[in-house]
Amino acid sequence: MARKTTPRKRRTGPAGSVVVIGLGRFGRALALELVDEDTEVLGIDEDAEVVQALSGSLTHVVRADSTKEDALRQLGVHEFDRAVVAIGTDLEASILTASLLISFGIENVWAKAISEAHGRILTQLGVHHVVYPEHDMGQRVAHLVRGRMLDYIEFEDDFAMVKTTPPADIIGLPLSNSAVRSRYGLTVVAIKRPGEGFTYATPETVVQADDTIIVAGRTRATERFSELQ
Amino acid sequence: MARKTTPRKRRTGPAGSVVVIGLGRFGRALALELVDEDTEVLGIDEDAEVVQALSGSLTHVVRADSTKEDALRQLGVHEFDRAVVAIGTDLEASILTASLLISFGIENVWAKAISEAHGRILTQLGVHHVVYPEHDMGQRVAHLVRGRMLDYIEFEDDFAMVKTTPPADIIGLPLSNSAVRSRYGLTVVAIKRPGEGFTYATPETVVQADDTIIVAGRTRATERFSELQ
Amino acid sequence: MARKTTPRKRRTGPAGSVVVIGLGRFGRALALELVDEDTEVLGIDEDAEVVQALSGSLTHVVRADSTKEDALRQLGVHEFDRAVVAIGTDLEASILTASLLISFGIENVWAKAISEAHGRILTQLGVHHVVYPEHDMGQRVAHLVRGRMLDYIEFEDDFAMVKTTPPADIIGLPLSNSAVRSRYGLTVVAIKRPGEGFTYATPETVVQADDTIIVAGRTRATERFSELQ
Amino acid sequence: MARKTTPRKRRTGPAGSVVVIGLGRFGRALALELVDEDTEVLGIDEDAEVVQALSGSLTHVVRADSTKEDALRQLGVHEFDRAVVAIGTDLEASILTASLLISFGIENVWAKAISEAHGRILTQLGVHHVVYPEHDMGQRVAHLVRGRMLDYIEFEDDFAMVKTTPPADIIGLPLSNSAVRSRYGLTVVAIKRPGEGFTYATPETVVQADDTIIVAGRTRATERFSELQ
Amino acid sequence: MARKTTPRKRRTGPAGSVVVIGLGRFGRALALELVDEDTEVLGIDEDAEVVQALSGSLTHVVRADSTKEDALRQLGVHEFDRAVVAIGTDLEASILTASLLISFGIENVWAKAISEAHGRILTQLGVHHVVYPEHDMGQRVAHLVRGRMLDYIEFEDDFAMVKTTPPADIIGLPLSNSAVRSRYGLTVVAIKRPGEGFTYATPETVVQADDTIIVAGRTRATERFSELQ
Amino acid sequence: MARKTTPRKRRTGPAGSVVVIGLGRFGRALALELVDEDTEVLGIDEDAEVVQALSGSLTHVVRADSTKEDALRQLGVHEFDRAVVAIGTDLEASILTASLLISFGIENVWAKAISEAHGRILTQLGVHHVVYPEHDMGQRVAHLVRGRMLDYIEFEDDFAMVKTTPPADIIGLPLSNSAVRSRYGLTVVAIKRPGEGFTYATPETVVQADDTIIVAGRTRATERFSELQ
Amino acid sequence: MARKTTPRKRRTGPAGSVVVIGLGRFGRALALELVDEDTEVLGIDEDAEVVQALSGSLTHVVRADSTKEDALRQLGVHEFDRAVVAIGTDLEASILTASLLISFGIENVWAKAISEAHGRILTQLGVHHVVYPEHDMGQRVAHLVRGRMLDYIEFEDDFAMVKTTPPADIIGLPLSNSAVRSRYGLTVVAIKRPGEGFTYATPETVVQADDTIIVAGRTRATERFSELQ
Amino acid sequence: MARKTTPRKRRTGPAGSVVVIGLGRFGRALALELVDEDTEVLGIDEDAEVVQALSGSLTHVVRADSTKEDALRQLGVHEFDRAVVAIGTDLEASILTASLLISFGIENVWAKAISEAHGRILTQLGVHHVVYPEHDMGQRVAHLVRGRMLDYIEFEDDFAMVKTTPPADIIGLPLSNSAVRSRYGLTVVAIKRPGEGFTYATPETVVQADDTIIVAGRTRATERFSELQ
Repeated sequence: MARKTTPRKRRTGPAGSVVVIGLGRFGRALALELVDEDTEVLGIDEDAEVVQALSGSLTHVVRADSTKEDALRQLGVHEFDRAVVAIGTDLEASILTASLLISFGIENVWAKAISEAHGRILTQLGVHHVVYPEHDMGQRVAHLVRGRMLDYIEFEDDFAMVKTTPPADIIGLPLSNSAVRSRYGLTVVAIKRPGEGFTYATPETVVQADDTIIVAGRTRATERFSELQ
Repeated sequence: MARKTTPRKRRTGPAGSVVVIGLGRFGRALALELVDEDTEVLGIDEDAEVVQALSGSLTHVVRADSTKEDALRQLGVHEFDRAVVAIGTDLEASILTASLLISFGIENVWAKAISEAHGRILTQLGVHHVVYPEHDMGQRVAHLVRGRMLDYIEFEDDFAMVKTTPPADIIGLPLSNSAVRSRYGLTVVAIKRPGEGFTYATPETVVQADDTIIVAGRTRATERFSELQ
Repeated sequence: MARKTTPRKRRTGPAGSVVVIGLGRFGRALALELVDEDTEVLGIDEDAEVVQALSGSLTHVVRADSTKEDALRQLGVHEFDRAVVAIGTDLEASILTASLLISFGIENVWAKAISEAHGRILTQLGVHHVVYPEHDMGQRVAHLVRGRMLDYIEFEDDFAMVKTTPPADIIGLPLSNSAVRSRYGLTVVAIKRPGEGFTYATPETVVQADDTIIVAGRTRATERFSELQ
Repeated sequence: MARKTTPRKRRTGPAGSVVVIGLGRFGRALALELVDEDTEVLGIDEDAEVVQALSGSLTHVVRADSTKEDALRQLGVHEFDRAVVAIGTDLEASILTASLLISFGIENVWAKAISEAHGRILTQLGVHHVVYPEHDMGQRVAHLVRGRMLDYIEFEDDFAMVKTTPPADIIGLPLSNSAVRSRYGLTVVAIKRPGEGFTYATPETVVQADDTIIVAGRTRATERFSELQ
Repeated sequence: MARKTTPRKRRTGPAGSVVVIGLGRFGRALALELVDEDTEVLGIDEDAEVVQALSGSLTHVVRADSTKEDALRQLGVHEFDRAVVAIGTDLEASILTASLLISFGIENVWAKAISEAHGRILTQLGVHHVVYPEHDMGQRVAHLVRGRMLDYIEFEDDFAMVKTTPPADIIGLPLSNSAVRSRYGLTVVAIKRPGEGFTYATPETVVQADDTIIVAGRTRATERFSELQ
Repeated sequence: MARKTTPRKRRTGPAGSVVVIGLGRFGRALALELVDEDTEVLGIDEDAEVVQALSGSLTHVVRADSTKEDALRQLGVHEFDRAVVAIGTDLEASILTASLLISFGIENVWAKAISEAHGRILTQLGVHHVVYPEHDMGQRVAHLVRGRMLDYIEFEDDFAMVKTTPPADIIGLPLSNSAVRSRYGLTVVAIKRPGEGFTYATPETVVQADDTIIVAGRTRATERFSELQ
Repeated sequence: MARKTTPRKRRTGPAGSVVVIGLGRFGRALALELVDEDTEVLGIDEDAEVVQALSGSLTHVVRADSTKEDALRQLGVHEFDRAVVAIGTDLEASILTASLLISFGIENVWAKAISEAHGRILTQLGVHHVVYPEHDMGQRVAHLVRGRMLDYIEFEDDFAMVKTTPPADIIGLPLSNSAVRSRYGLTVVAIKRPGEGFTYATPETVVQADDTIIVAGRTRATERFSELQ
Repeated sequence: MARKTTPRKRRTGPAGSVVVIGLGRFGRALALELVDEDTEVLGIDEDAEVVQALSGSLTHVVRADSTKEDALRQLGVHEFDRAVVAIGTDLEASILTASLLISFGIENVWAKAISEAHGRILTQLGVHHVVYPEHDMGQRVAHLVRGRMLDYIEFEDDFAMVKTTPPADIIGLPLSNSAVRSRYGLTVVAIKRPGEGFTYATPETVVQADDTIIVAGRTRATERFSELQ
């Protein structure tokens, strides 16, 4: 057994390769992003057309029924230490697949859930990380729909970062003078001039009217700030 | 006609109420988050069970076929200035609904797309903001699957923020001494002691081994940093 | 790119070739009529049997899924300057196809709509000419069902042409004497003797009882005239 | 039997009322056009929603299964002398309905056919007028797709009328001088100034560059004429 | 063309060959019975398995879609003068097929109907003989269910033949003495001794208790007779 | 228990009532024919529309699921001594129903079979009479399709009766002189003058050219006879 | 909350009541057997007909969707300490239901599995006892199919009990003399005279030819013994 | 024909080979258990995947439609003397198959029933042994669900064997002293020390607290005994 494992470890390299099962929108974006970051990916889907479409883009991509133990073992899935169950809408296939990955003893199993019940089952089966794309994006977009924020992310309860346009009262001053922290309880983290990329903000940075800024702080504070004119 | 519009405008108030059409995982999370932020929401879905389940949680929630102009007009949807088409999987219903909202002249129409073609059509119809939850979350999770990052967000091409654990060589020093910016091209934005919330990092902040930190900078730099031990 | 375009322009010739997508009753009749008029036609349908049946009749006819950008590009559809989306009943396929044609920048895109909502979406996408065969033929046939007209066409609101049999009071006289214009506000445009074709009517033309005539004028006037005995 | 017929004849009045079975796009447009022309219409469809939507617009509109003799007799359909079978896509329902109307001895039965085979069956059953909307509109649109015609109608083989813009060489002259008939074998029937309606053309009419004209003549001649610049 | 026809006419021979379309229970039994009687049969069905199962039993049997004119013409169906449409349950296919046979001018077209409406349509199309197997067998079996008849056939209204066991009062006598005609208004047509076939009855025939007899006469009379003990 | 049975026996009367399960074409014709013959019928079908349509025509007609023992017992079906399973196309329902009737100990169970396998199962279950309407009518019609017979029935192997027109050589003679029996091995059983009913043929009967006759005899002999001119 | 629990605990009594979810063949037999043994049962099924049919037989029986947490909580399912998931064929419903029961902290959850994968998932979720009826009965019946055993049960690997007829060589002797243990490695456990029940066998029991016996011992030994004549 | 039969009879050998039709959970377990016991098995299923999966495990396994007589005869099924119809859920296929096996005259036909009606039909067809896995396992598991029994089997009404843990009052004594028979009306049949197999219990056997025992006796007595502590 040790022997069988050793060559594979060597093959996967230091960054660790990942098996991604289910190549719909979520799994595809995930797999392509991994490949962009030089991570080897074994993509699995049961739709031949999907597999065909990605055959040039992923390290390996095969058509297989991931609910069958034999199929996964033949692909060596049991020897990976990172796996993502990105199966879209078929609850049963998601659960059968996750169950097999857990039974293989894979150390890091991620799975996408489409409902609370689905998420609870995945957790009960022993899946290590459960992701809710629709739910999480719904929450994130809610902050953008309301108004002037350009992007929003909450890292933990009550600590958010927001991309927005600067309010009038901090324009034209170095940040050290604009009292953002004292008045709004926020810090300007980064700034972007039109046509340039973001750069880290320093106390000397002077914000101008057509800049875009990123501010960090408590969720409510970021929201109130982004509504200032 | 002017009369009809006037009272409603008054009713929506300064924060602006939002109509959310389609109350699946994405629409529901979005609508509930809006209500949490004290925004009035009119939720619409064609599934009576879904409407029933949310009836106590949203400002208004009704069962209606959003592909019918009459149905939307009876609900006053044409008088909102913010609308989200969060219809999950029915491409045709999504397009018919978005087409009506645009024909009403609503100023801010957001819509969820499930594929590139869907997104292109929504844009051609005139939808103002197109969102791809599955795709975006897939990309974001890709960074977490690979290893030591705890959370990841890319605000714009090549400017990311990452939640991670600190590498050994910055522990025990004030940030001003740890040369994170010069050595890694990054800035530590926030820090979290076990059992506390995130606070903004200052030059005097001393990072400890069991802290969680958020660093900002170029995408690759944040990744390399999060792989340090 | 300019190079790629040049040879194709030469191939299509002065009359301009046309791509017709969807070869049901409408698309087929349209494509065959074009070929009859010496226009080159590329017909596309996703039903192999339909393609087979037309393979000898159109310039080119291929089986392809017109909702896929790759499929259309491989056929060179993006290089045509006239295209007709004649997809019968599949709203989604019609919209996906029209969206692609518009995104290719084709100058003249015609599309058949099966409902008002469909027509509105096609227009919002940027389709240049939207046709409603069922609706238009329904209106036209309404005039024939009522009685004595043999054919009817309304060119614009309130200007129609009608094929009918002549009323008694204009029979046996030269048209210049029958006062059709003064009494009925109409002009006899053409006349057809039994067993012959239509010829243009002149003031000297004498209408006979078994002739068929075409009269032009305001819609109501043509109708009243066709009910005379 | 004679008695039964007499009162109905009186009720329907001189214009003659019409029963329209099937209220899809074709039947609906037909029925509404009849009502516009002050003809009484009894509309029948088996879809309650369709019936509901038209309940204010037609003289009578009822939900019934037109394939059942009892249902039609209860509505008095057997006493009409004009009936239109406008059933859209259900071949069997169309044939069953037409068969009943013929067995009732109705004098003028019109029916829409969706294919040649359908049309042949309707004719064999004894239907008096068979209409092919998709096919006929396909042919008509073919002439418009090719280029400069604005509208086109062929009344009989080889006698067409075309709405088009005038070629350069007839502009600025009275029609009597422009030799349209001798040079092109055509007659200018009507003319429309921008912002006005069509009026009948006379020898004295002077065509201007932004006018729209209707010309009549042999099919090929009208086409060649409309391609002149 | 004349040539093509001539050899076929010769091939069909004096007895006339028959095309049977639809090889379910009815068509199959019909076709096999014809072959038993030395009639050439061309069997057509669209189910390959059915065709396969009968391939050794009929003169010719092919898989084809009998609703397509081309398919029938390729098989020479238009040159037969006897055809049976034995299509079981698909009303539309039955009508389309019968319509084609009639349009070919076939002289004797038989068709099975599954309902009155179906039968009326077949007749309106011009089908020469319409058969209702379920209905006719239902009526025939009704007479057997009630009691002592062994078989029953009604040739015309009110003239039936019945196979039954003889009542006591005609046993042991020559038929000339048993007064069957005068007492019951019936004639004993044939008689069958146990273990033998039927033979024609004569006045001298003596009926015995275990014989089976066939009697002819008015329907009611045959029924009453068969209930005697 | 004995009590329960007694009143019902009285109710059914001397002729014996019949339960008919399944009221499609076969069952309906059978049931109506029984009622015509003054037999009480309990009709059962699971389609409410069918039951409704027959409610005035049968003695009793109810909607019930005949595959459920409870449903049949509540209707007293177990107390009938004649039952017909006329279920059309649902093999499973036919078998379940027949199984119940046999388990009730009903003395005469008839059932319609749609295939040989179906017939074998019904026989194995203990059904007393199995009927094959499609098969039997197919065989019977085969004899009519071939030519000049007007009706045909085979009572037993090799003894048939045929309705036909008389051949030339028996016209104008009394039957005693026409040697039908000696020359053709047949007997003329009945004769019908145009506009009259059938009457029994006697030796004195003179056949005329426009008569219809029924002849009896061996199958082949009847066929050969009917082909004579 | 404590209050809510207390009365229910009292209601369930010492024997412990059981909730049985899914009332197909397995669940129904299980539930009825429990009731026979004086155990209170709450039966749940989502089919109203099933619930209706058992309404008089179980302590409580309700129609509910057991995959919904709310539905189960309203029925107090979370307060039971014994539950059986007897859902027949719907893998997803079985898993969703079992997941909820485990999340309620119920101490004894039994579940029926229809496949190995299903069983593995149930175990991973935390279900305490997984049952495979089809599989276990298949194994058990295998022993009966082969021959002379009348019943068979294997309590643990390699220890079985078999009901069979006695071989010749043990007939007529007291068991103490027939050396069953020494010769066959088995013990005769019980014996049944025709027309009586089983009684425990003692050394004095004399086996007779028409007795039925139960023997215990190693699996193979019991099989070999049952094949003796 | 005799020849064909002879070699096969020889091949099947003394133990008798078995045909198992339907290889779902029940049929598969049954077939594999037979093979384990050195019985030749011909497995038949109509699902190619199922056949493939078992191809190495059964003596013969083929894909065939067991409802077709030809298919079964080609496999020689009619020459077996033992057959099991293990078809899972398709009532019709089960009945058609069993009917064929009975018509072949196979001596021992076993069949699985999924309902009482199914079982009754199988019995009426002549099937020799009908098995109800779901029902029987449901009853058996009921006894385990209630509490302390580890396994349970009822051989006949009112004679059961139970695997359980010993109550306190029989621990530490030889069975001859523990008065199990006199006090509980039961006999301890077998005993299992932790880590060992079951052995037959003798009067000298001393039961210990962590042993597992099997007791035999009347059903209620075994239950009461297993509830003792």
